[in-house]
Amino acid sequence: MGSLGQYQQKHKVTVVGSGNWGTAIAKIVAENTASNPALFEKDVQMWVYEEKVEISKSSKHYDPASPLCQGPQNLTDVINQTHENVKYLEGIALPKNLIANPSLVDAVRDSTILVFNLPHQFIVNICGQIKGKILPYARGVSCIKGVDVNEEGAHLFSETIGKILGIYCGALSGANIATEVGQEKWSESSIGYDPPHFDSKAPTPARSPSGSTENIVHYEHKDVSGQLSKVKLQALPTEYPPVDHAVLKSLFHRPYFHISVVSDVAGVSLGGALKNVVAVAAGWVIGKGWGDNAKAAIMRVGLLEMVKFGERFFGATINTKTFTEESAGVADMITSCSGGRNFRCAKLSVERNQSIEQVEATELNGQSLQGTLTALEVNSFLKKQGLEEEFPLFTAVYRVLQGNMTIDEIPSFIER
Amino acid sequence: MGSLGQYQQKHKVTVVGSGNWGTAIAKIVAENTASNPALFEKDVQMWVYEEKVEISKSSKHYDPASPLCQGPQNLTDVINQTHENVKYLEGIALPKNLIANPSLVDAVRDSTILVFNLPHQFIVNICGQIKGKILPYARGVSCIKGVDVNEEGAHLFSETIGKILGIYCGALSGANIATEVGQEKWSESSIGYDPPHFDSKAPTPARSPSGSTENIVHYEHKDVSGQLSKVKLQALPTEYPPVDHAVLKSLFHRPYFHISVVSDVAGVSLGGALKNVVAVAAGWVIGKGWGDNAKAAIMRVGLLEMVKFGERFFGATINTKTFTEESAGVADMITSCSGGRNFRCAKLSVERNQSIEQVEATELNGQSLQGTLTALEVNSFLKKQGLEEEFPLFTAVYRVLQGNMTIDEIPSFIER
Repeated sequence: MGSLGQYQQKHKVTVVGSGNWGTAIAKIVAENTASNPALFEKDVQMWVYEEKVEISKSSKHYDPASPLCQGPQNLTDVINQTHENVKYLEGIALPKNLIANPSLVDAVRDSTILVFNLPHQFIVNICGQIKGKILPYARGVSCIKGVDVNEEGAHLFSETIGKILGIYCGALSGANIATEVGQEKWSESSIGYDPPHFDSKAPTPARSPSGSTENIVHYEHKDVSGQLSKVKLQALPTEYPPVDHAVLKSLFHRPYFHISVVSDVAGVSLGGALKNVVAVAAGWVIGKGWGDNAKAAIMRVGLLEMVKFGERFFGATINTKTFTEESAGVADMITSCSGGRNFRCAKLSVERNQSIEQVEATELNGQSLQGTLTALEVNSFLKKQGLEEEFPLFTAVYRVLQGNMTIDEIPSFIER
Repeated sequence: MGSLGQYQQKHKVTVVGSGNWGTAIAKIVAENTASNPALFEKDVQMWVYEEKVEISKSSKHYDPASPLCQGPQNLTDVINQTHENVKYLEGIALPKNLIANPSLVDAVRDSTILVFNLPHQFIVNICGQIKGKILPYARGVSCIKGVDVNEEGAHLFSETIGKILGIYCGALSGANIATEVGQEKWSESSIGYDPPHFDSKAPTPARSPSGSTENIVHYEHKDVSGQLSKVKLQALPTEYPPVDHAVLKSLFHRPYFHISVVSDVAGVSLGGALKNVVAVAAGWVIGKGWGDNAKAAIMRVGLLEMVKFGERFFGATINTKTFTEESAGVADMITSCSGGRNFRCAKLSVERNQSIEQVEATELNGQSLQGTLTALEVNSFLKKQGLEEEFPLFTAVYRVLQGNMTIDEIPSFIER
């Protein structure tokens, strides 16, 4: 790392989002900016959707004499004074250099690295608000799980962010539960990051917040539906350490959070979506009392179909080893089939002889299951392509959800 | 299958071994010989190590008036009259065409397909007893889990059988628990089978129990230690349907037991050994309370090291997809890390703060753990090759077992 001292500028990092997972990731990022002063500015901005919270009497921060405990307070004030996100990551001490900021535009200003970690339905709106108000050469990392699949194809959330903002954006995904990561229980995660190469011989512009017209690459991207899009991308000024795999590892890797950075953004993103469909089937099989071998068979077939889906629809842009070797692939699928909410609700639906929607309604406090939704989306796409038969497990999950197949029929349906 | 009617001879099948797993496999094989009369003789011989058993009063076969219930009886007589292996697969009805035979030599006589399913420590002795007393063109399938690893290399049990008997022998392995297979709970399994090719233009001898000197191939095999051995192999007479992947599938596949036949015997065999080492580490991590993500991380690394071990030591003869796509690979590892005995004993050893040997002594009724033994064997081999560092998880398991590393040190030791 010694040679990094040559750079005149350090990266400023902002985390956009402060829910359970957003806060856990912001904690990691702030720990790492503090311990890598040659690369990063110490303070990390975290954009917080402002809301009123009250510190509960059971909290260690409760002090009847404190102004913070006189009725509802701004969440940002509470975070910045107690260094705890009392609402979304209770009981976890946050680094003091993590600054909660209620202004989205202010939080992202002048940051060279933007970490996106918010519910996927807010991406378009949030990116619209900061478009043109960020550094034109900023780089992004999306921690939003899954992909946006519809009849036309699959779109990566990282690409949606990149297109709206005109920046390059990678993706982070893995076998992680926010609360456990907050508690510093050991886990692993994967980052996919593969920006286009700039010609190193071309002159590089000095730092210019308004954006230079030099050193622009037109970045061509073909999505699943074959649609070609061009993204204009600006080179990072040479005053900054390049945002490469080593720098991202420095920003996200911790002794309790092991990071592997690969180039396969699509693979890293896709695993986090498709594993939920597999987890639904695994839950059914366990609910039926068929045992661990049957569940392992479902997971084996699920992993195969994940690899095949990647190969079929992302072609050469995907590395199928991401599914079999990375935390974002096989490990995340294993965790989701062990105790994730898709697994649990599917299992309960068999045990209680209820529809999965009924279980969802009583067990999830109004939240919705990702696996059933993804099964529908994936099927609408496979059906349009005439490829349902090549993905028997994904198709079986869809048909059982629709009431057109029974769980007992799954083994023979997926038989080789 | 219609064209199979052209063959004048049917295959006679014998199962050597009648324990828990041996009886479950024999049940499957006998069901399939009955339902594929064009390929197989209906009756299946099962060699049973003769012992005396008493039918318990709780058994449905107990009848105080029956001669079978007047004191200890031969196990073979009980099996042949009750069609149940009351000692090793209690409560499971066996097909009437499965014949228990106490004479090893008589059971294997004239059989073209020999299925080996007995504890691995008996292989050499049992094969020695039938050497020269089987059809010289018989083919074998070993259902014995694991491989024989020592300082010099890894040897497949199927190869040991093949060498002693002078026949070709494949291997069956998968995510299977004998009792669940007996109960016809759905699971999957893999068969590795890849005999050398005979020159189809050469004249093929008529059936000759004494063996023809024509149509012999000298089958070269290089094992892990680089040792080259030649096995003489005799072609199956053309009166028989060739023992190919389709015939093996007909013999082992059931609606509740899905078989995939591949060519990779080493991969199918190796997975069943190495997964036990991974299961020990998974048990420790869960015993420590580190949660499902940490366990998934261990399994991810374990799968990677299984693939790497295969690549390093079996080279081109192994297909690494066996580990990531087959029941004998990833699925079997998943099951073993869910509730197998290696996982359970390792977990208990942490929870009780006992050595794994102490847990083994109190929990396993005198049986020994495969995972700890394989960890020692694998390490002696890796150490001699100077390759411990390239297999950090396998090495960590060994060192923790030896008391030279703590479980807490594993995450940083296996860090990428």
